[in-house]
Formats: sequence, C-alpha cells, structure tokens
Amino acid sequence: MSLHLTILGCYAATPRTFTNPTSQVLEIKNHVFLIDCAEGTQVQLRRHKVKFSRIEHIFISHLHGDHVYGLIGLVSSYMLLHRVNPLHIYGPKGIKEMILLQLKLSASWTTYELYFHELTSSESEIIFEDDKVRVRTIPLKHRIYTNGFLFEEKQGLRKLNAAAAESYHIDKCYYRNIALGKDITLDDGRVISNDLLTFEPIPPKRYAYCSDTAYNEDVVPLIHGCDVLYHESTFLESELALADKTMHSTARQAATIAAKANVKELLLGHYSTRYDSIEAFADEARPVFPNVHLSDDGKTFEF
Amino acid sequence: MSLHLTILGCYAATPRTFTNPTSQVLEIKNHVFLIDCAEGTQVQLRRHKVKFSRIEHIFISHLHGDHVYGLIGLVSSYMLLHRVNPLHIYGPKGIKEMILLQLKLSASWTTYELYFHELTSSESEIIFEDDKVRVRTIPLKHRIYTNGFLFEEKQGLRKLNAAAAESYHIDKCYYRNIALGKDITLDDGRVISNDLLTFEPIPPKRYAYCSDTAYNEDVVPLIHGCDVLYHESTFLESELALADKTMHSTARQAATIAAKANVKELLLGHYSTRYDSIEAFADEARPVFPNVHLSDDGKTFEF
Repeated sequence: MSLHLTILGCYAATPRTFTNPTSQVLEIKNHVFLIDCAEGTQVQLRRHKVKFSRIEHIFISHLHGDHVYGLIGLVSSYMLLHRVNPLHIYGPKGIKEMILLQLKLSASWTTYELYFHELTSSESEIIFEDDKVRVRTIPLKHRIYTNGFLFEEKQGLRKLNAAAAESYHIDKCYYRNIALGKDITLDDGRVISNDLLTFEPIPPKRYAYCSDTAYNEDVVPLIHGCDVLYHESTFLESELALADKTMHSTARQAATIAAKANVKELLLGHYSTRYDSIEAFADEARPVFPNVHLSDDGKTFEF
Repeated sequence: MSLHLTILGCYAATPRTFTNPTSQVLEIKNHVFLIDCAEGTQVQLRRHKVKFSRIEHIFISHLHGDHVYGLIGLVSSYMLLHRVNPLHIYGPKGIKEMILLQLKLSASWTTYELYFHELTSSESEIIFEDDKVRVRTIPLKHRIYTNGFLFEEKQGLRKLNAAAAESYHIDKCYYRNIALGKDITLDDGRVISNDLLTFEPIPPKRYAYCSDTAYNEDVVPLIHGCDVLYHESTFLESELALADKTMHSTARQAATIAAKANVKELLLGHYSTRYDSIEAFADEARPVFPNVHLSDDGKTFEF
C-alpha cells in the first residue's frame, strides 16, 4: 500500500492570501495523521476535502506559530462538530497548557477524549505504535525544542501464492497456516518451505518529516534509506548566512542530507515567502540529489 | 467624515472554505480599529487590502474562539513584519495570559510595545478616548463575559463660512478665532455672532457593535439613537429555543433592539452556518425595523 500525502501548507512564517504555513496529512495503513497545524489548517482540510474526522493523531514538531496556531481552532471545531472519537496530540512540553488555557478561558470542554503526549527527550523515541505503523521522533536543531517524525509501516505478512499451493495439491484448510508463515508437510512426508508457497510481502514504506531544522547530519542514521524525506528548505544558498542565523536549511543542505541518508525521494518545503518562485529550490537541490520534488499547497503525492 | 466598515468575517462558530468567523475593521476619524479577531483574520486583512499596519487598537468582545483565535497569529505576524508602533489590545481578563503564554512557548517577543487593557466591569465604561473618538463598552449577556463596543466620534468644530466672513469685510487674520468659535467685533462696534460666520459642524457618528449576546434590552439606553447598530443574529425565530439556550439572538430580536433604541441603521451578522442563504435574516428583521443591512465577508459599508 502506498503513502498518500496531502500538503495543506508549506510556506514559512506568516499565512498569506494564497499560501499557508506548515501542515500536511499523511495517510498510511488506514491511519490519517496530521503533521503540524498552522493557522488556517482547518480551512485547508475542508478546501482539500480531507475527511478530517478520521484524524486521530496530530504530531506537532515545535511551538512556533507557523506550525501550531491552528491547533486550538481545530480542537474547538471538533467540539462544535460533536466529535466522539478520541484525539491524541504529540508535541513539545507546553502544548497541553497552551490548548487547555484557551479552552478554559472560553469555558469550553471537548465532547471527546483529548490526550496530550508531551515530548521532552533529546533522543529519538517511539511515540506511537500499533500492529501496522510505528512513529519515532527525529530530534532536530532549531531555535526552540523541535522534533521531526519518522513514520514507518511495519513489515506485513507474506501473501499466499494460491497457484503454487494448488500445484502441491495442498488442501485449502492449510492456507491460513501458509499465510502465517508456516511450512507445510505433504501426505508423502515432503516439507514444502513457506517461501515456495507465498509471495514476498509488500515492502514497508518509511516517511521522514524534518522541519524546522538547521543542517544537521545527526539525523542521517535515523532516516537512512527511507522512501521519502520531507526536509525543510527555507532558504537558497544565497541566504546561507540567514539560514545559519535562524537555524533553517537551504535547498542544497536539504539535498545533502537526502544524499547522505540515501533516501529514495526528497520533498522540499517551508519556503521563505521572500522568493517569487519555488522552482529555484529544485534547481539548487537537483545537482546534489536528483530525485527531488517540490511540495506546494494543495498538492498530493503517492509514494 | 463617514464611518468606513469592512466586514472580514461575520459567520458563527467554525471557519469554512468560503466563510469566516467574526472580525471587522472600523475606520473612524483616522483611526483603524480592529473589532474581534477570529482565526484567519490576518489573511482576510490581506485579501481585502486593509493596511493593517495602521491598526493600533484591537477590541475583543469575548474569548470564544470564533472571536479571538486569530489574535496570536496577528500579534506574531506583526513581529515577523518588524512592526514598530505600539499595539493596544482591549478584551476580557485572561487575554493577556492567553497571548503571552503562546509567545513564551515559542520563545518569541514582540518588536513593538504591546499593551493589554483587560476588562472586568459589568458596567459600561470608557476604555479609549482621544480628542476625536471615544470608545465605551456595552456589557452584553452571553455564556461568558462579553462586551460590545460603542465607537463615538466627538463633536467637531464649526467650519468657517469664508463667504459670510468676507461679506462682513472681516480680515483673514481673524479666521482662526472664528474657527475656534469666537464672535467677532467689527470696527464699527457691531458684534457678529459666530453662528453667522460658520457652518454647522459635521454631526458626529456613533457605531455600536453588539456580538455575541442574548436578547438584552439593557443595551437600549447605551446605544440609543446611534447611526449604525451591528447586532448579532445567529438564528432565525424558527430556532428561538436554540438562541435562548446558547444565549444568542434571532434576526427579529436584533431588529427589536434596533427599533427600541431608535438607531438609524441595523447591520446583521454572526449567522449560524446552518442556513443556506442569509436573505432570510433580512426578511425576518425588516417588518420590525425596515432599515436593515446584511453584513457579509468582504463587504464594505460607508455610513
């Protein structure tokens, strides 16, 4: 199964008439994850027809406004829409106080269970896991405490090769055992190895989200070989000094991380609004890492 | 001088793709006042080309999200845009903590002086005054502490009638005294009364903003005879029970207040998003108060 990514916003700093700060929706193994939630995210969810009632987990990288100021509005709107299913929010320590204070001041309370998972570790840690998906933090270097997130599908089971099983005249009542990975002993005593009766499972996908961050090679082992890396590229190399000062990355630096981590595809975003066109970001990244894509508001990707 | 009003948003509850919750800009005597600041207000300011650097006073009626969740974003954007001039925010107690906590969590501070004027009184009080304009609170009845605001121009000076002055052969060096309201003694000893040498001053205008509120006749003496009343009309009479329960008003109730207060014009808004068309609000109000207007996002009014 593929990853489906919807970019709701991918520009830095202030929302503008036609561009939005950071938020994206990752659909992975029946989960709909929201990653960051800038002001206007709830409208972007509506505009791009995301079934946002299905979001049960929201991951917030850091508490700068262009990544989180839409969260209280979404939490409130879920309440007004009579949401029932629980909502989990993962983000830096302080996020709970930020949301609860605003609910308290409006004398509001949610109609659903709201769980906060506050993060403080500077080491990578698993923050969500079920039988199909695992989410780890990717500690980043920014002006305030920030985590990226690595979303990993778990290895699925091998798929039954019904034609192969039939060729050995194996009774269908054994098919479930085959699907569970067991070898089969035929009536004549021969043992048929499971790999002869099954197809390879679909390779699990991995999506790494790294925003906001200065150039930081510490992330390379964590994201090595992943299918898609979203790496912020707030600036071009012409603004390298500004990137250093504000602890952001250039497109070339993002591409360098992608190359060193040997990822399959690189997705750029978090563009400073100073640039008239975003094509220059791809132009700068491509010589270092060819398989580069430009995120843009409303764009969707299948990986 | 006329009042210039820009409706940035006039729908209740959640922002949607094509409608916005409450925010409006009142231009009165060289002031640009922002009234309420729902999520998305900063984008609406850009979309409708309001020179929002000129806003120095923001009036927040109450701390429900659809009136205030855009404030932190605007305060932050002013910072990113290197604002210098001071900003004054008037609103219920708690608004300072709400904004400062979010700035603190993002390790941010404003580049400009930020003053909070927290309101707690249940009596009408003057909260802003200079030589041209006065702003008073209008205590409202809602589920949480809420104030409307009455914006009043002060009486201006009479205007010099140059033709009349010339007809009396008055030397121009006396014109300033005439403009200041003084009578003039001619060389022959005759005293010319100031009102013969001047035009009536432009009548001062008054704009009353009442949102959100249940039907509340207590506001009538405060807003009596004002030029324009913006009164919330979240519901139609068919949802009267819901209006009572949620402490909102119907269009008919808004019109009743307008009629009792003998205002010149009524502006409806804060429509529930349950209605497909807003024309029904005017239809319901008009039999009670004929001079009714419908606010709508992006609409501007000159009064």
